[in-house]
Parts: sequence; C-alpha cells; structure tokens
Amino acid sequence: MKRALNFNAGPAALPEAVLQKAQGEWLNIEDTGMSVMELSHRSNTFDAIHSKSIALLKEIMDIPDNYEVLFLQGGASLQFTMVPMNLLQSDRKAYYVLTGSWSEKALKEAKKIGNTEIAASAKESNYTYIPAVEEIAYNPADAAYLHITTNNTIYGTQWKGYPQLENAPLIADMSSDILSKKIDVSKFGLIYAGAQKNLGPSGVTVVIIRKDLINSSLTNLPTMLQYETHAKSNSLYNTPPTLAIYLLSLVLEWVQDQGGVEKLEEMNTAKAKLIYDAIDNSEGFYKGHAVPDSRSHMNVTFTLPDDHATKQFLEQAKAAGFVGLNGHRSIGGCRASIYNAVPLSHCAELAEFMKKFKETYSASVVKS
Amino acid sequence: MKRALNFNAGPAALPEAVLQKAQGEWLNIEDTGMSVMELSHRSNTFDAIHSKSIALLKEIMDIPDNYEVLFLQGGASLQFTMVPMNLLQSDRKAYYVLTGSWSEKALKEAKKIGNTEIAASAKESNYTYIPAVEEIAYNPADAAYLHITTNNTIYGTQWKGYPQLENAPLIADMSSDILSKKIDVSKFGLIYAGAQKNLGPSGVTVVIIRKDLINSSLTNLPTMLQYETHAKSNSLYNTPPTLAIYLLSLVLEWVQDQGGVEKLEEMNTAKAKLIYDAIDNSEGFYKGHAVPDSRSHMNVTFTLPDDHATKQFLEQAKAAGFVGLNGHRSIGGCRASIYNAVPLSHCAELAEFMKKFKETYSASVVKS
Repeated sequence: MKRALNFNAGPAALPEAVLQKAQGEWLNIEDTGMSVMELSHRSNTFDAIHSKSIALLKEIMDIPDNYEVLFLQGGASLQFTMVPMNLLQSDRKAYYVLTGSWSEKALKEAKKIGNTEIAASAKESNYTYIPAVEEIAYNPADAAYLHITTNNTIYGTQWKGYPQLENAPLIADMSSDILSKKIDVSKFGLIYAGAQKNLGPSGVTVVIIRKDLINSSLTNLPTMLQYETHAKSNSLYNTPPTLAIYLLSLVLEWVQDQGGVEKLEEMNTAKAKLIYDAIDNSEGFYKGHAVPDSRSHMNVTFTLPDDHATKQFLEQAKAAGFVGLNGHRSIGGCRASIYNAVPLSHCAELAEFMKKFKETYSASVVKS
Repeated sequence: MKRALNFNAGPAALPEAVLQKAQGEWLNIEDTGMSVMELSHRSNTFDAIHSKSIALLKEIMDIPDNYEVLFLQGGASLQFTMVPMNLLQSDRKAYYVLTGSWSEKALKEAKKIGNTEIAASAKESNYTYIPAVEEIAYNPADAAYLHITTNNTIYGTQWKGYPQLENAPLIADMSSDILSKKIDVSKFGLIYAGAQKNLGPSGVTVVIIRKDLINSSLTNLPTMLQYETHAKSNSLYNTPPTLAIYLLSLVLEWVQDQGGVEKLEEMNTAKAKLIYDAIDNSEGFYKGHAVPDSRSHMNVTFTLPDDHATKQFLEQAKAAGFVGLNGHRSIGGCRASIYNAVPLSHCAELAEFMKKFKETYSASVVKS
C-alpha cells in the first residue's frame, strides 16, 4: 500500500514509523493483554507512558525546570479562553499581535474576559507578513501579557524571531510549528499547541507554562479551566485523552530518533526550499501569498494565474495522489502543509509536479 | 495472546472486534493511503465517519428529531461547568440530586455559576442508595433544571427509574451507563457522557441536547463553552478529536451487531447477576456496598471481612489475570466494572474466582 502524498493542514501526516509501532502493540501494550485505551489512567503502565511524554518533551525542547508541561483537551481554541481567564488581571491589559485568523479568534475570546489592545497587526495586507519586532507597541506598565501566533496556517507566515519583553510574559500559540525548529522556551511565559500538526492526533493540547504564572487564587473559576488544577494533579484531575497522549509519546520518540529539533529544522528548511523554489522559478506562474522574509516553513501558500488554472492544478494534483493542497476557504488558492512528518521526498514530488504542471498548462493555453 | 480479564472502571475494556477492525485499517482507512488520524476533519472521508457516528447513536438510542448530538472534549468534568453556564439563568435555581462524588463535583461547579439547591442526597449513608423519586424536592416555579448522575462508579449505585419533572428539564450525567440499557431520551433535556466507559476511548464527550435548550443569546460566554457554537457547526467549530470519534463509530456499529441496547441490557443484567449472586451466596463473606434495589449493573462494589482478606483477594485476583478490581481510593474494598464490552464469560470467571477464594481463605483462617 502506497502512503498518500499528504499535505493536509491538520490533522496532518504522521510518521509512518509511529503508525506501525502503534499498530503492532494495538491489542497488547506492554504485555498487559489490553489496548492502551483500555488501561486505567491511574495504572502504572499508563503512568509510565504519561511520564515519558513529559520527560521527552522537556528534553527535546530543553524546557527549564521552572516550567510545567500539561496535557489538556479542547485544542488551541479553548486556550484562547483559558489564557485570559488565568492570566489577564482586571487592572491590566492583554496585548495581541494579529497575524491571521487564529490570532483574531484568540483576541475575540480575550475581549470577553478583560481589557485588550492590538499591539501590531498585518491585517491591512491580508496577512502577508509578520510585523517587525520593533513595530510591536505595548505598555510594560499595564501589560498582563503579549500574545502571538508563531505560525499562521491559513496565510503561510511564520515568526522568525520573537519579541523580548520587559515586565510581561510572552504567550505563544505554537500549534502549527512547535517542534519544527529550535526555540528558547525561557523567552516565553506560556506556550500552547493543539497536537494535530507536529505532535500527534487531534484531541490533546500541550501547554508549557512558567510556574510563577500558575495562579492559585482563582478558585472561583471553573475547576477545569484553571491551570492550577491540572498542574497540581499532573494533568490527571479527570480522565485524560490516554490514547492521544500515548501517540504523542511515540511521536516524541520519533523526533528523538530523527536527531531532535535541530535536525528537523534543517529538514524543514530543505523541504520548504524545494517548494518555494518551484514558486520562485516559475516566472510568476505561481505566486506566494507571504512576503519572502515571513514565509512559513510549515505551510506554503500560493496562487496560480486564475481560477481555471487553480482548478486544473488541484484536480490534476489529486489525480496524481496529492492530498490536502486546497487553500483554506477564507483565502482560496493552494496550500502545501509540510509539517515534521511530511518526508522530503514528498516535497520533491510536489515541486516536480508544480514544474511540470506549469509547463503543460502554459503550453495548452498558448495552443488554445 | 490472551485478552486480560479487564474490570477497569474507565478507561475500560473495549470490544475486541472493534480493536481488530481499527488495527486492520490503521494505516489505510477507506483506501486513502492514510490513517484516520491523518485525514482532514473537513474531508469527505472523515465527514462520513462523523455523520455515521451521529446517525448510529440516534438510531441506537432512538433519539427524537428535536435533539442535537454533539461530540465535545473535556469529559464530563467540563460539562459540570458548561451545563450551568448554558442553562442556569440568573433568576432561577439549579437542583442537584447527590448520589456520589461525581454529583458533588457537578454541584460544586454549578455553585460558581449561579443559585443551586440540593434536591435530595444519599450522602449521610455514604451513598449506598439512590433516593426515591418521590423524595426529590424541587420547586417547578424557579427550577432551571434538575441534575442527576444516572450511575455512580465509585459507590456502585444506579438509577432504575427517572423523575418526571414539571416545567424543568432533567439533565443527566450518563457517563457510566449510557447504552447499557434502553432509556427514553425524550424524558431528558440534556444527557452527557464521557466516552471512556461504554462508548470508546477517553477524549470525546457525547452531549445529547434538546434543541430548545440551545441558547443563542449567550454571546458573551467563551465561544468554546456555548452549546450553540457546536450545534451550529455540527461539532466542527474547531478540530474535533477525530480518532476518538472514529473509534466511537466502531463501538456503535458493534452495539448494533450485538442487537442494540435491549440485548445489551439483557446481557448486562445477566453479567451483574453472576457477581451479585457470588456476593449474596457467600454467607456474608462478601458484602455489597449498595443496597439491593440501587445496585448498579455497571459497577459492582463489595467489601471483604477485613483488610487482610481484601489484600489477599486483590493479590490473588491479580495473579489470576484479573485487572482493575481495586475499589476506588475514596471507599476502598473491591469493585468490578462490567461495562458493555466486558464479556459474560469474564464475569463468570470472576464469580467462580470469588467463590473459590472464599472457600480457601475461610479454610486457611480456620486452620491458622
């Protein structure tokens, strides 16, 4: 069975080795005679899986000891609410940098909780770029935090460096580029990420929070929405998504086997280059949505000369076995999502397909 | 490989046929060349799985057309908050029947949101029984709803009939007995259930809500915590836990293959009888925690004469291949959870083991 050329934006491709390992022990994990899903979340066998996931993530991301790693549910969308509920004090202001639909949604939820302000926005350009760090306007005297979305799946932009803040934590939605490159966790107050791009299946959300930001005085908040609840109980306050955490542990092992985030970063850079080169060498046939210095190494967004060409491209790509190349419905065009698990060879196949399509399509248009 | 004799309280045993089906198509669902986890949640392939899960649940439970079926995250614990956030108007009161730790937790969260009152409680008996329907005291003039927990995993009690309410919806946490027997959904305003007992793996929560209870005026509530958000978007407002929903669809197919809830109810009654008979025929060696007419057909809780006997029992049971028989840490003793997927033969093996243990243990105590 040939594996699909999977460029889905999320849920997305997973490493084949992870799928095979899970399949092999699906009915009998660690010689228990049970599937991992059938284990009690308080059993020693599951505890070992849970602890390993935390330890591996700490090691791979070099997470300092003054941070907690939590495994929650509800995706980044629930974090849009939990972050301000837990971190936005009533006498302070939450600053948001708008770089796409996800940051807009995060801001919308924060507005329901407290005072907010837009610290920078690329909206007027239809989100083709990431604002320069110097453009970010916030007041250290009243800032509860500054929130950014490190990679923008819909527009195909990605932060290359991060603001250094005074007196306020930097909060980052890293759903779509966590583990894709080396980052310095100590520069962030809180990082959150839905798993379904680089970490595993949908259904588990990773939160990495600096311990001093875990507020223990929010007892009137719903228990499930307090970071303190989950930090105190090692994410076992209620039944966690055990299967998703297990699969996350396998993905983290795979990341280590690949040589860690440094190696993945090299690979992701090479993968992105293949496709961006296909765009840049197409004499304008393909146009990237993002300006070059904001280009994402996770989601390559591009357009073709007109709707007819786009339609033909997507149809022929589908027939050739490529999956998930449609652009997001809000901006149209095409998008290739090339998360960690997408092999270099698939990117090379796509680049080659793009080149050939351009040639044959241009020739057919000249003829007709 | 012998399957474990799995009596876990949740996550719990799943049907072996479900595990095998999932394993067989793990790397290639519906000839896509992808794992189900790698599909876009907006793809036709996933849409078919999602729609099938809803249709099957409606068919199996005979859910009337004026109800929505939602697939959410966060478990019953997040529903403890969402129910009052969405249904407890500020000029009304939420009534709770206390039948164990889970209803206490549900009440605790509701208190943070609005006015509450205890309509009945079995707490003074250490939750050995379900209050009689006639004992339930609530005021139809101010009731926003009445909340019950239909089965109590920790104490081993289960509602046998449900209150008929005037002018207020009945809300039920059915996490631990949904699909175990026939119920009349039209008697309930809202039913919720974490999947990890009778529905599938942990990580998806089923909510069945009468459409007139979906309030569209709660726009200032966090978007993810409004039922309306999920009802309007067919539970696809954000990325759902696709793998858990797929496994739920397989469990629902299995329920149909078994002959539906009527057949499962017969089977569950027979399974429970085997173990309760072992208790009742033990001349007082085993004592059930629940009073007979409140006994759960999902969780059989019992104690032995003393701690030494309990310890011996649990050790020997473990050595004999039984899993999950320890009582919950809050009440001790023993518990056999016998959800839908636990075969009758495993219950027979347990009943036999209990009988033999009693004989050998009693003999050894007489000798020593």
